[in-house]
Parts: sequence; structure tokens; C-alpha cells
Amino acid sequence: MSHQQRKDDHVAHAHALYRERRINDFDHLDFVHHSFPELDCVAISLATRTRAFAWPFPFYINGMTGGSAKTLEINRQLGEVAQATGLAIASGSQSAALKDPNVRASFSVLRERHPNGFVLGNVGAGVSPTQAEQAVEMLHADALQVHINAPQELVMPEGDREFGAWLDNIEAIRARVGVPVVVKEVGFGMSEETAFRLRERGVELVDVSGRGGTNFIAIENLRRSAQEYDYLEGWGQSAVVSLLEVSPHMGALDVLASGGVRHPLDVLKALALGARAVGVSGRVLHILLSEGPEVLIETLEAWKAQLRTLMAMVGATTVEELRHTDLLIRGPVREHCELRGIDPMTYARRARSARHGG
Amino acid sequence: MSHQQRKDDHVAHAHALYRERRINDFDHLDFVHHSFPELDCVAISLATRTRAFAWPFPFYINGMTGGSAKTLEINRQLGEVAQATGLAIASGSQSAALKDPNVRASFSVLRERHPNGFVLGNVGAGVSPTQAEQAVEMLHADALQVHINAPQELVMPEGDREFGAWLDNIEAIRARVGVPVVVKEVGFGMSEETAFRLRERGVELVDVSGRGGTNFIAIENLRRSAQEYDYLEGWGQSAVVSLLEVSPHMGALDVLASGGVRHPLDVLKALALGARAVGVSGRVLHILLSEGPEVLIETLEAWKAQLRTLMAMVGATTVEELRHTDLLIRGPVREHCELRGIDPMTYARRARSARHGG
Amino acid sequence: MSHQQRKDDHVAHAHALYRERRINDFDHLDFVHHSFPELDCVAISLATRTRAFAWPFPFYINGMTGGSAKTLEINRQLGEVAQATGLAIASGSQSAALKDPNVRASFSVLRERHPNGFVLGNVGAGVSPTQAEQAVEMLHADALQVHINAPQELVMPEGDREFGAWLDNIEAIRARVGVPVVVKEVGFGMSEETAFRLRERGVELVDVSGRGGTNFIAIENLRRSAQEYDYLEGWGQSAVVSLLEVSPHMGALDVLASGGVRHPLDVLKALALGARAVGVSGRVLHILLSEGPEVLIETLEAWKAQLRTLMAMVGATTVEELRHTDLLIRGPVREHCELRGIDPMTYARRARSARHGG
Amino acid sequence: MSHQQRKDDHVAHAHALYRERRINDFDHLDFVHHSFPELDCVAISLATRTRAFAWPFPFYINGMTGGSAKTLEINRQLGEVAQATGLAIASGSQSAALKDPNVRASFSVLRERHPNGFVLGNVGAGVSPTQAEQAVEMLHADALQVHINAPQELVMPEGDREFGAWLDNIEAIRARVGVPVVVKEVGFGMSEETAFRLRERGVELVDVSGRGGTNFIAIENLRRSAQEYDYLEGWGQSAVVSLLEVSPHMGALDVLASGGVRHPLDVLKALALGARAVGVSGRVLHILLSEGPEVLIETLEAWKAQLRTLMAMVGATTVEELRHTDLLIRGPVREHCELRGIDPMTYARRARSARHGG
Ligand SMILES: Cc1cc2nc3c(=O)[nH]c(=O)nc-3n(C[C@H](O)[C@H](O)[C@H](O)COP(=O)(O)O)c2cc1C
Ligand SMILES: Cc1cc2nc3c(=O)[nH]c(=O)nc-3n(C[C@H](O)[C@H](O)[C@H](O)COP(=O)(O)O)c2cc1C
Ligand SMILES: Cc1cc2nc3c(=O)[nH]c(=O)nc-3n(C[C@H](O)[C@H](O)[C@H](O)COP(=O)(O)O)c2cc1C
Ligand SMILES: Cc1cc2nc3c(=O)[nH]c(=O)nc-3n(C[C@H](O)[C@H](O)[C@H](O)COP(=O)(O)O)c2cc1C
Repeated sequence: MSHQQRKDDHVAHAHALYRERRINDFDHLDFVHHSFPELDCVAISLATRTRAFAWPFPFYINGMTGGSAKTLEINRQLGEVAQATGLAIASGSQSAALKDPNVRASFSVLRERHPNGFVLGNVGAGVSPTQAEQAVEMLHADALQVHINAPQELVMPEGDREFGAWLDNIEAIRARVGVPVVVKEVGFGMSEETAFRLRERGVELVDVSGRGGTNFIAIENLRRSAQEYDYLEGWGQSAVVSLLEVSPHMGALDVLASGGVRHPLDVLKALALGARAVGVSGRVLHILLSEGPEVLIETLEAWKAQLRTLMAMVGATTVEELRHTDLLIRGPVREHCELRGIDPMTYARRARSARHGG
Repeated sequence: MSHQQRKDDHVAHAHALYRERRINDFDHLDFVHHSFPELDCVAISLATRTRAFAWPFPFYINGMTGGSAKTLEINRQLGEVAQATGLAIASGSQSAALKDPNVRASFSVLRERHPNGFVLGNVGAGVSPTQAEQAVEMLHADALQVHINAPQELVMPEGDREFGAWLDNIEAIRARVGVPVVVKEVGFGMSEETAFRLRERGVELVDVSGRGGTNFIAIENLRRSAQEYDYLEGWGQSAVVSLLEVSPHMGALDVLASGGVRHPLDVLKALALGARAVGVSGRVLHILLSEGPEVLIETLEAWKAQLRTLMAMVGATTVEELRHTDLLIRGPVREHCELRGIDPMTYARRARSARHGG
Repeated sequence: MSHQQRKDDHVAHAHALYRERRINDFDHLDFVHHSFPELDCVAISLATRTRAFAWPFPFYINGMTGGSAKTLEINRQLGEVAQATGLAIASGSQSAALKDPNVRASFSVLRERHPNGFVLGNVGAGVSPTQAEQAVEMLHADALQVHINAPQELVMPEGDREFGAWLDNIEAIRARVGVPVVVKEVGFGMSEETAFRLRERGVELVDVSGRGGTNFIAIENLRRSAQEYDYLEGWGQSAVVSLLEVSPHMGALDVLASGGVRHPLDVLKALALGARAVGVSGRVLHILLSEGPEVLIETLEAWKAQLRTLMAMVGATTVEELRHTDLLIRGPVREHCELRGIDPMTYARRARSARHGG
Repeated sequence: MSHQQRKDDHVAHAHALYRERRINDFDHLDFVHHSFPELDCVAISLATRTRAFAWPFPFYINGMTGGSAKTLEINRQLGEVAQATGLAIASGSQSAALKDPNVRASFSVLRERHPNGFVLGNVGAGVSPTQAEQAVEMLHADALQVHINAPQELVMPEGDREFGAWLDNIEAIRARVGVPVVVKEVGFGMSEETAFRLRERGVELVDVSGRGGTNFIAIENLRRSAQEYDYLEGWGQSAVVSLLEVSPHMGALDVLASGGVRHPLDVLKALALGARAVGVSGRVLHILLSEGPEVLIETLEAWKAQLRTLMAMVGATTVEELRHTDLLIRGPVREHCELRGIDPMTYARRARSARHGG
């Protein structure tokens, strides 16, 4: 099976497996409703920042594709959508283009269509620092995502089987490329231990990309005749759980979140849990493929407006203030917290503790 | 879209979305059954009181409508029902009449039909103190509801976007109008923090009006072609949760409850949680529109009789004694309590603690 | 509506509402499986005793009916079944016969058919001590059940409305009748507070008769055209919860259990929770009416054999030893325990504590 | 009913009752996903050991059948599968052959087809030490399973009813036979107390064989016309719960696990809970009967490959290292732990405690 075919498969299967309103861990998180927003909506700002960059909007189009004729067309449209909406956008893995110059255009089209926007490159944790540098150059990238996807590699027959050098390599990539590096999961989420390991290596930006949306084990199973890894489809933790897991490291790490984001309320919840910005892949792809780029642009503009509404509902004029809202962590997410030593209570009483303490 | 049309839409959509026995948080509350009522039913009284007024019955018809020809007819019937049953009744928001004198009759008909009854006016938290005064005069109102409905305003395209002055304004309204003021939610419930804010402003009466019955986000979504706020339909807390939330302030505040009340057992539960009286809107409207005023009067009379029966079952001769019954707070409501620092145990052992202590 | 008709209705509705394997609180109780019974089955005895009497089997046919031509026939068959199986049997409420001598035969037939067996009379808590004495005489009863059924009375249009004198009256009945008195619920269960009240009055025998089987609110609702008390059908606590509730009083009270018993495993569980014997009504009636007395006798004989099997499985040779088995109290029953201050843990570790302590 | 017929029935009913992906307690156990395996797959070894033996693979074909013409054929095929895959295999109960030499071949065929493999004999806890010795000889067995199956015996009309001597007898068997003895449940699981009793008798090897897969009460019920023990089909505890129960004795006992194992992820979970190896019966039988020995061999080879993949995902190069992975114990299993005094938290934080402590 050719590399191009694999890329087209990923897109087709992700699209086929997409379900609009699938229940996920965001549904186990509720805001406490306080009746008085104590603000006027005009004061609300959607801007967000990390130590490495500042964005006008706290959500972005996350890394997906490239590497074939079909995905060139998708990336062209995604680039245009990012340009029209002013959103940051990440590329899919550029490995193919690092090996085969013929498919470079399917990636560089992103930059071509979004010339002044924020574009993130994307490579796997196994590429050499030199290749990582080439990936950045290919897109004149503003930042580089380095994806870590061990479960996917392991389930792919043609996947990587050597993980021993990943952490060293990430350190070397960071040292070499001249742009900020985001270490990024691909839908399995992160743990406290993973964040700890990354901090040890000097990483300052992560994207926890959790379970509950695009499911790469399900996708790879569709690509195998026997589908023998169906029992693995629940693997990993959600963005919600991941944000709770990595929260002790949020001083040292700027955390981005993605995975299973369905609508602006999910964005709001991730931001309230401490994410600096929120990535969307599956839902963006779904709208693009089923309704086209115009509807996608309209939808993303509507998200911006709705996000302002939602910020008003919880009385926040800035993304930072969302981190002082009251969140109820329920059911299985609460159980996860209790088992892992994360206190779910403090999240439920942040406004009050501001009243008493701060 | 005209103001009249909006009022008719609200009624039509509330009616269409109504479900007779929808599960809600009242179902997560059980009384402990004690076999000996130790009373004779003749001794039971349904009377209730707050520091501001005394009512013969502990439930009332809550604020709904007015402002159009159709809603004039509804208010005429509601006024007659209140008159026949001796229940207190609240008006829907009088804003329309404050702007357009032509629709005043659709509100004043309430007082016309219920000349000696207890009638509550209703305005939004954004009206001026003078307008509030006019609203009271319009109905010769015995009290004034000031509704706080930020989520509804935000979801309405034509809604208010400035909330910064609401608390000051509520204080000014109270200072101006010569009748008791009830600050009232509209189906999203109240939090401890909201009660705290209101106490700070000298408010003494609130109606927590919680989630689980009429759902204004669902209603407003039906009015939008895109229905893009469907993910918000679970917003807010129930009357049950709200009563638990505000309970630390029940010394300073007299609390009324509404939202999702389906039958007399819900009334009993709200009273047992400390409500002084219980408002009903959706169910009243549903019976009126589907079965007419006669059946509504019969039903409300049956509620009185059933409420006596239920009080006998839990051994209470007065509404106050209901606050010493044993309540089991279960499942998601219990989880809410634990997360927010409310002790669910004491409610389950109130009879016993009377045995030991009082 | 005539008294006879009411009795026939109760039987017909109880039969119609019966469901063979309805989930109830017994399903929230599990034994810990220990692999070594450490006994030989021949050593197992089913005998049980209270301070008032000793029975060869730890289950009995609980109070049901009488008072009409149809129920005379049912009681005749039940008397024959009790005689054939050697089980104790209780009469339905004898109130009708105390007022109308014509229906006495429909009760006394029980004793006629079970001449040397253990027969319990049955009266309500409102009858006079003299009437209670007459009820005992009518059946040459070995004991007298005094039923307490406030919720049923309250839901019945023709029901009792005066409960103030019940406890005094129970004391007076006990003082007058020359046989042991069992104070008995009718499917709503007992609380710690109820057991406490009864102990205060010198009562030594109770039947907690809990929710989960025959449901008298559902039955009475079927008898009303409007069925307006449908929201009350979940009222009360189960036999399982009741046994946990009254356990602190098991030194002073001998506790019988009934309500929702479907099969011998439910009997075993009630005995393991401390019941001295276990009453069955709905299931007995169901088999009698749908399959006849022969099948009922076979079934009850099979229950004896199965109960021996089950006692072997948990390593108990006597009913008393069942009180040292390990029970897991789960889900909503566990929640009830936690809310009411009952420790569910000790029940799960009784074998172990015998190892360490006793 | 002949003994042969019973053996054929067991196979037929086990096959008929088998469900491919039935939910069981393994589903209440999740690994925490850590993104960095920090290993290369080539380093992974599947080998496992107990104090009594060492195996190249950590799963085995558990004891099933023999004793009739049909089961001879099954055992012939199972022996060939074990030979082809190099897996250890246990025989079904050899009691029949101890009484009737004509059926010996149906057991010894296992050894005949798997001449150099690891073969376990199987007898009940009631056989004499001499019979146990004969069973070992019959198979030139490398070890002997002594099964304990009180619930099954009790539900079988023809079953054993004397359990008083089982523990003494197990001690005597161990003293006599020259091979390691595995005391084994048959699908009802073990408790801490059972492990304690076995340790007292010097037993060093157990197979907890828990609930959730093959269900011998369901099978025996199918063999009875009345199926009167259907209420017992939930009896016992799962392999997951059993491993947690017996964990305090894992120093003195080497624990094998079986019962409800559906796929390699269940194997991984049992190993992570401390099992030295994992037995599979129902699933093996199902594949054999529905797809034949070739597919069974392919499947078991696939399990080996998948198990390596899974070990890589949790960063373990050896079976021992699996015992330091992070496991989330959820829902009903967590409740079991809390009720029985087992700490579910430590399992969720094993990697971290290695970071801090070891
Ligand atoms: C079609 C498709 C291809 C993807 N390819 C990549 C990739 O090459 N590199 C990467 O880091 N993530 C890739 N992802 C993962 C996403 O960036 C994201 O982590 C994951 O889809 C979860 O987010 P979602 O639930 O919003 O889709 C891909 C996702 C999709 C849907
Ligand atoms: C048709 C309709 C119109 C309403 N209009 C108002 C209003 O104008 N002002 C107000 O305070 N509440 C209004 N409400 C809210 C009710 O007073 C109440 O807070 C809410 O419906 C929850 O109670 P329920 O579940 O019993 O309907 C309205 C409710 C309905 C059903
Ligand atoms: C038809 C019927 C009539 C009953 N009548 C009486 C009665 O007269 N007195 C009484 O104490 N209990 C009466 N009961 C209640 C039973 O004794 C028992 O408390 C209740 O049915 C719960 O047990 P079950 O679930 O096994 O039916 C009656 C039950 C049935 C089914
Ligand atoms: C058809 C069949 C026959 C069995 N016979 C025996 C037996 O004779 N001795 C024994 O110890 N276990 C016997 N077992 C039980 C298994 O060894 C194992 O403990 C049980 O089936 C649970 O594992 P599973 O869920 O993988 O099937 C038998 C299982 C099956 C399916």
C-alpha cells in the first residue's frame, strides 16, 4: 500500500467514523451557573497567549493531512479557511515530503494560501533534527508540532517499533529548529508522567490531544482486514482528563488541548481547565468534506461569536479569567481524579476561593 | 420579528417542549419513610409565610406571559384560575407594556380577574427604577419579581448584552418600589455565590427557578433557524441543587423555588429543602392550553388535597415542620453537594438529630 | 364500593401488577464467594427461632386476604398449602370480619385447613384491644400481626386519616392479647426511627415489609379513575434497606423481613442481614392464581431444598451462622447507608473479623 | 444420564452460551496511557515463571474436557494446537477415567499430541491422593490442577454434597503427587479468605478462575428442565476482583488467572494485576468448534504478537514489569475494593511511586 493511499485512507476513515454529537468526557464537566455575569459583552476579548506566541483567537485548526493529490486539495481549502478566519493552522505529518519532494506542494499549499498566518509544521518524534529543520523551512513554519503516537505506530503493520530514542530526539529537535516546538499527542491524551518527562527535557509547549474524537486505533483497524485491535478502541485519556493530569506542570508548560472538540462549549471547558488554546481536527474535516469551505468559514466565525456569548455566561472577559470559573467534574472523570490523586473539589470552588482569599 | 410574536412564540414553544413526567433532579431526592405519622390529618395546615407576606397555600402560579392578544386571553384565564383557587400569581415580564401602552391590558387583566388576590409584577434586571414603579402600579402589585436571565438574553439575537449594572440596578429598584422585591431566575437556578451577591445588596426574597422544566435555551433555539446553541440546553442547576446551594443564606434570605415542578411531591420536596413556597409555570400552562381553565382549577384543588396527604405521610402538620423531615440526596445531586462542599448527610438525619438534640 | 369488592380488587390488582423477576434492592446485595464451604450438607438445618416462637423453616406465607367469597376460596387453598408444607401463615386483615360476622369463615378457613400449624392473625393499628382479642380468637391464632400502613390509608379515598393514637393503641393491644404481637409494615419498609419508636413501646417483634414487590400505592392508584398518585409509587424503603436501618435494634427486637422476595436467594440475603424469618406474599399469590395449589406446594418444597443448597454455598449450617457471611452492599443501597450513617463495610468483612477476633 | 453425556452437554452448552465480546470486569479496568514507551519492541519478552515452572508465553489453554468419544476428538485437536503454539495446556477433570479405564484415551491424547509440552492433569478436590497420583501418571503430567467447584456440585443433581474434608484432602494430595499442584476454581473466583485457607495448607499455586466467561451455573441450569437456579447465575467474583482479593498473599502464592479472558488486552490486564500466567477456556473452545484448529492456531499466534504490541504500549519489556504499570480500577470493581478494604489508589500510581521511591 502506497504512502499516498494511506493518507487518503486516514481522511476517508476519519470522515466515515465521525459522529456529530458523540458523548465524551466534555459532557462530564459542567459549569456552575452564577446569575450575574458582572460584565458588558463589549469588554470580552478572545485573545490568548503562550510564552512562545500570541493569537487573536483561542482555537486553531489542528494537524491533519498532506502527501497525496487529494490531500493537497484539502490542504489548499484548509489554508484558505485559515486565511479567511485568521486562525492558526497546523500541517499534517510532513514525513512523506521529507522522503519524496513530489508531494511537498501538498503541504506548502497551506503557507501559500495563508501567507501571513500562523502555520505549524508537523513531524514524528523519530525524524532527525535535520529533517525537522527541513519541515520548518518547507512551510516557513512559525512553530513545529512533533507528534507522539506510539499506539498508532504499534497498531499499524508498517508502523515504527523503536521508541527508546524518542525523548532524546525531541530534545535534539528543539535544540536545532529555530521555532517553538509543540509536543503533541494524536488522540490518546497525556498523563502527569508524560508531562513530567517532557519538562525534564526542557519542553515548554504541549498539545495533549486526547481521546473522544478522532480515533486512530479505529481508523487503523478499518485499514486491517482482521480488525483485530477493536478491543483497543477505548485506549487513552480524554483532553479533559489530560488537562487535569498535566495541571501540576502548567507553571512550566504551556498546554494546548485537542481531541473530541465538538462545539464552542467544549472549547470553553478546555480553556477553563487551563488550556491556552484548543485544537480542532475531526469536526473541521467533517464540515469541509460534507459542506465545503464556505460553510466551514461561516461555522468558525459563528464559533467566535458563540465563544464570546459563553464567556459572558461565565463572567469572563479574558481567556485567563476562565481559569477562575467553577467547574463540576463528574462521574468517570471524577473517578479518574480520585484514583490518580487529583483533587476535583478545588475546581468547583474557584470563584468562592477568590472571594475569600484573592 | 415583533415583540408580540416573540411572546406568542415563547408560549407555543414552551407548550410544545413540555413533557409530563420528564425525569429531573426531584427524582434524585427521596424521603425516608417513617411508619408513624403521629398526627391526625385535620391538624394539617398548608399556610406559609416569608418576612414579607403570608399565603394560605405554599405554591403559586409563576410569571409567564402578556404582551399580545393571545397572551391577554391566557392571562385572563390564569387570573380567573388564581381567583378560583386563591393562589398567588405572578405576571410575565411587563417590559412590553412599559414601552407600548397598547398592550397594558394583557397584563392588568391579571389584577382585574384576581382583584383581592396576591399578584406579583415582573420586570427584567435592566429596567429603570421608575419603570419598575410603573410596573407595580400597572397591576397594583403586592410584590415585584425582578427576573435575572443572562443566558436567555445572550442566546436571543435581540437580547441584552450589558450585565455590568444589574446588581446596582436591583438595589435601586428595591429602594424605589414600595412593595417586596423577589429576585428571580428563569430556569437556570441559583448558586451560593449568587445568593451571596444578592444578600450583599440587601435582597431578602429570591426565587431560585432552576433547570429541569421549562428550558429557555431550548425555546430560543427553536426560534433560531440554525439552533446552534443546542449544546447549551443542559445549562444551569435545578431547583433542588439551587436550594442546597443557597441554604447557608436561608437565615437572611426567604427562598422561593420553582423550575421543573410536576406534581405535589415535587412541591413537598422543595418545601422540605427550605423553600417558603413553590412556583409552577410550565405545568400550569400545559394544563391550561391542553385541557382548559376548569381542569386547571380542579387540578390545583387536587394538589392542595394531595399536599395534605403527603404532609401526613412525612408527619408534618405545618410547612415549617417539613424542614425537619429526612431527605436522601442521591446520585448526581449528591455529587454536586460533595464537589461544592455541601453536606448531604445532615439532610438524611434531621428527625434523629431532633430526637437527640432538640 | 363494597368492602368485599375492595378485597377482590386488591387480589386482582396485586396479581396483575406482579412481575416475576423485577429488579429490586436484593439485586444490590452480593455474597462474597469463598471456595470452601467446610461443611457437609447433611448437617444443615433450616430451623429458626425468635424469643417468641420456633419454626422449622425460615420463611412463611405473609398476610394477604379474606373478607369475600373469592378470597375465602383463596384462603382455603393457602391454608392447605401451609398445612402441606408445614409453613407458618398469616391472615389478611380481619377488620371486615370484626364488623361483619358473615365473612368470618373467609378467615377462619385458614385455621380449619392448617389445624396444628402456626397461624398469625392480622389487624390494623387502629382497632381496639378488644377487637384485636377477637381477631386472635377467630383464628385461634398463635401470634397477631398489627399492620401499619399509613401511606396506603392516605391514598385510599375511604382510608384512615387519624394516626395520632396508633402507638398508644399498639401498646394497649400488646397488653391485652395473650399471644406475641408482630408489628408489620405492608410494603413501605421501616426506618431506624420506626424501630426506635416501637422499642420504646415494648414491641419485640417486627416485620419490616419493604418496597420492591407488591406495591399498595400502585394497587390503590389502579382503583382510582385519575390514578393521581402515580408519582408516589416509589415511596418507602426496601426490605434490604429496612434490615440495615433497624439493625442497631436487633438486640431488643426480633426482626422478620418481607417485601419483594422472589426466590430462595432473596430469603438467604434477608436472613444474612439478620432477619429471623422471611415472609412471601406476592409471589405466593401469583403462583397460586396462575398455576394452582399443587404447583405452589412443589415450589415451596423446592425452596426448602434450594435454601439448603444456598446455605452450603456460603458455608452455614444454621440460620444464625448466615449472620457471619460476607455481604457486599452496592450502589443505591450503599448510598442509603452512607447517607444515614450505616457502615456498609463491616458487612463485607464478617468472616475475616471472625478469623481475627472471634 | 451417563457420564459421557454430561461431558458432551458441558461442551455443547458452554459453546451455546458463549458470547464474543460480553462486557465483564476486565472492562472496568483501564491503563493510564503514558506517551513514551521508552523501549524498542525487539527487547520485549513474553516469558513468565512461577516458583514451580517457567513458560515461554504467559497464557495457556485451561482445563476443559475428556471422558467421551466427542471430547476425545476435541482433546486431540487441543493437544495439536498446544503443540503447534508451544502453549501449556490443562486437561479436563480426569475423574471419569479414574473410574472407567475405557475413557482414558480421551485424556491421554493430550500428552500424545503434545509430547514435550507442558501438560497439567485435573482432578476434583474430593479424589483420593492415590487417584490424584494416577491422574498425573495418566498424562505424564508436569503439574496437577485440583479444581474446587462447590457451587457447581451443589447445583448439579448428581453433584457432591460433602465439602468438610476438601482442605485436608488437598493437603494430602500435595504431599503425595510428585508434581506442582495448582488449586483452581472453575469460574466463581477466589476471595482473600480462600487464599488464606490455601496458604495455611501450604499451597503455593492457585488459579483464581473467576466469573464473567464460562458460567457453570448457567450450564447446569440448561441441563435441568426447571432451570430453577437461574437467580444464581451472577454468583462469584471475576478474575479481576479475585486478583485484587488475593493480592495480599501474592508473596506466598503464585497466582494464575482465568475466567472471561476474551483477547490479549484481558491477558495484559490480568498480568498487570499480578497473575503469573493467564488461562483461556471458553474462547479457545469457541474458536475450535466454530472455526477449527487451524484458525485457533493462527489466533493464538496473533495473540502472542498482539501481546508484544500491548506490552510496548505500556512500556514493559517483561511480564514482571507489567506489575508496575498504572491501572485505573473503576465502577463496581472499585466498589468491591472499598467494601473489602482493598486500596484501589495504589494501582493507579505505580509508575509515579517508582519515580519517587524506587
Ligand atoms: C485525517 C486526520 C489525519 C491526522 N493526521 C495527523 C498527523 O499527521 N499528525 C498529527 O500530529 N496529528 C494528526 N491527526 C490528529 C489530530 O491532529 C488530532 O490530534 C486528533 O484528530 C484529535 O482531535 P479531533 O478529535 O478534533 O479530531 C490527524 C487527524 C485526522 C482527523
Ligand atoms: C411561556 C413562559 C414564559 C415565561 N416568561 C417569563 C417572564 O416573562 N419572566 C420571568 O421571570 N419568567 C418567565 N418564565 C419563567 C418561569 O417563571 C419559570 O421561572 C420557569 O418557567 C421555570 O418553571 P417551570 O419549569 O415550572 O416552567 C416564563 C415561563 C414560560 C413557560
Ligand atoms: C393481595 C394482598 C393483600 C394484602 N393484604 C394485607 C393485609 O390485609 N394486611 C397486611 O398486613 N398486609 C397485607 N398485604 C401485604 C403483605 O403482607 C406484604 O407486606 C406485602 O405484600 C409485601 O410483600 P410481597 O412483596 O412479598 O408481596 C397484602 C398483600 C397482598 C399481595
Ligand atoms: C466445556 C468446559 C469444561 C470444563 N471442565 C472443567 C474441568 O473439568 N475442570 C476444571 O477445573 N475446569 C473446567 N472448566 C473450567 C475452565 O477451566 C475455566 O475455569 C472456566 O471455563 C473459566 O474460564 P473461561 O471463561 O475462559 O471459559 C471447563 C470449562 C469448559 C468451557
